[in-house]
Amino acid sequence: MLTKTPRTTPKTKSDRISFDRDEANAILDEAMICHVAFADDEGPVVLPTIHWRIGQTLYFHGSHASRMSQALASGRSLCVTATLLDGLVMARSAFWHTMNFRSVVLFGQGSEVKDLEEKTRAFDALMEKVAPGRQPHLRPTTQKELVATKLIAMPIEEGSVKCRQGPPGDAEGDEIWPVWAGILPLSLQAGEPIAEERVRPEMTLGKP
Amino acid sequence: MLTKTPRTTPKTKSDRISFDRDEANAILDEAMICHVAFADDEGPVVLPTIHWRIGQTLYFHGSHASRMSQALASGRSLCVTATLLDGLVMARSAFWHTMNFRSVVLFGQGSEVKDLEEKTRAFDALMEKVAPGRQPHLRPTTQKELVATKLIAMPIEEGSVKCRQGPPGDAEGDEIWPVWAGILPLSLQAGEPIAEERVRPEMTLGKP
Repeated sequence: MLTKTPRTTPKTKSDRISFDRDEANAILDEAMICHVAFADDEGPVVLPTIHWRIGQTLYFHGSHASRMSQALASGRSLCVTATLLDGLVMARSAFWHTMNFRSVVLFGQGSEVKDLEEKTRAFDALMEKVAPGRQPHLRPTTQKELVATKLIAMPIEEGSVKCRQGPPGDAEGDEIWPVWAGILPLSLQAGEPIAEERVRPEMTLGKP
Repeated sequence: MLTKTPRTTPKTKSDRISFDRDEANAILDEAMICHVAFADDEGPVVLPTIHWRIGQTLYFHGSHASRMSQALASGRSLCVTATLLDGLVMARSAFWHTMNFRSVVLFGQGSEVKDLEEKTRAFDALMEKVAPGRQPHLRPTTQKELVATKLIAMPIEEGSVKCRQGPPGDAEGDEIWPVWAGILPLSLQAGEPIAEERVRPEMTLGKP
């Protein structure tokens, strides 16, 4: 279970909240990007980034020069939120419209990983998330590239999962109102791969 | 133009940054949800929520009891980020892989809107974003519902747009490596509408 604290326990709609690690991990793994918040002297900043997971460790990466990777590695308090939008929920009144979603909110601190073996393992896991099976076909990563990329690890410990699924909940009596009601499912879908201009015709994304 | 400040001016890759209001508005309008960050005594918190726009005002809503809507209306510093993930960019080395995306990051303060005429106008605009043309078919919003929903407005003023589009940029010499390279486009797609069980067969989402 994720660690339950006052800030991971919303004041309302607690039936939508869970602290289940498997649920949290499933959302983190499916979400290609998350939004990471940190605070500086002027207030909070939230930026999108790709994240990935090995066991109970969440990873981020970036260039050493970027403000975000510096902030993530600084040991400052972070909040990391990954959200999957699953659908628009259309009720018979505007008031009862809502969305189906799955989200995980994590609190913690990040630290830079400098060990080259752990970096190699972590970046292999990132490639495996982005394009399973692709890594062995790529031009191998050089030591210079490995060193040039900052890797940040954050333990998955304090946090919560919030989900809403299912049909609209209309106000009593509204169900006879003559309007369609239900769910418009939404999901992130891949389109046709677009080959770079120098790719030979016999190569495909699926068969690199 | 959006207001350019030190915190909206990243230290790296400035060719991907813009302060164009039309670009910012287009991203805000296309993105169904954003991530809003605020800070409390323990540090930053970032949560997903639906947002919408009328002119240069960004709106949020929620129940009066929710921690998020209280934080948004409190006048505290907010950071609001909307991100559209457009594709995975596959280079010939792991190092040069990246993502195509469009994002807007805004800084500001929110305040509660209590005027019922502005609330009605704003919630109509929200329905129009979620399901254009649907509003006139719905059971009308009651005064009680209108009052029960907190509406928060934030001026769109300080912020920036960051985008990455186009094919992979490989390291010099990598283009001969025998592996597919290019873009896997990604987009949020709607599936088949799922009618709530009491919907009459002649009603559809498109023809409510």
